[in-house]
Amino acid sequence: MSGDEQAVVSANAAFYAAFQARDVKGMDALWARRQPVAVIHPGWPPLHGRVAVLESWRRILEGPAPPEIACSRAWPYVNGDSAFVICYEKLPGGDLVATNVFTREDGGWRIVHHQAGPTPPPADDAGSESLH
Amino acid sequence: MSGDEQAVVSANAAFYAAFQARDVKGMDALWARRQPVAVIHPGWPPLHGRVAVLESWRRILEGPAPPEIACSRAWPYVNGDSAFVICYEKLPGGDLVATNVFTREDGGWRIVHHQAGPTPPPADDAGSESLH
Repeated sequence: MSGDEQAVVSANAAFYAAFQARDVKGMDALWARRQPVAVIHPGWPPLHGRVAVLESWRRILEGPAPPEIACSRAWPYVNGDSAFVICYEKLPGGDLVATNVFTREDGGWRIVHHQAGPTPPPADDAGSESLH
Repeated sequence: MSGDEQAVVSANAAFYAAFQARDVKGMDALWARRQPVAVIHPGWPPLHGRVAVLESWRRILEGPAPPEIACSRAWPYVNGDSAFVICYEKLPGGDLVATNVFTREDGGWRIVHHQAGPTPPPADDAGSESLH
């Protein structure tokens, strides 16, 4: 992987680490500040704008049952100062597949968009990189 | 909307027009040639690379039951030479929400990634822009 691809995969891993740690402040810091952001949680309508997006994360992470989550098979696509990562998410309720879109801000990669939806389990689950 | 936002929304509409018209060649022309591409069809594993992505579209569009599809509420996010659009998709089997990622190639906007997944119907469906 190129340096940018490695950096984007690291930013993607930081996103799932904040999710797993229920770290609302850490999650906030990972999202872009200058580019507008959006999110599509599974089964939710799309949310547009930083206030709505971060409020959704607060509700999920501070809610009564924030899910355990582990990311695997992160696959980066870098295009200049934008990038996206496709990865699997393993949750107690099943497998999801996600697109996480990033932008370069202040020399680092920040998230501008996340969509996750249901998927069959990966064909060979041995390659999972669990966060646990 | 800015000129770029309008152009990205037009490229997004062309994608759904090709889908609805079952136009495999037109669909091919809409996808990026220099940037690597990916797709996540609802309920499918992610597909990586132009050959796999276009083969999936051929299978869907030439299949026995290509779905009728109408896009609504397209919402563009432009960031330099990259962009994404969030929109609803209405199909006979229900409502989906999609992220379509674009890159600027040869002065136009080409698709590099599409993910669609289940969503509740839009809160107020009166604003739908049907392709029919």
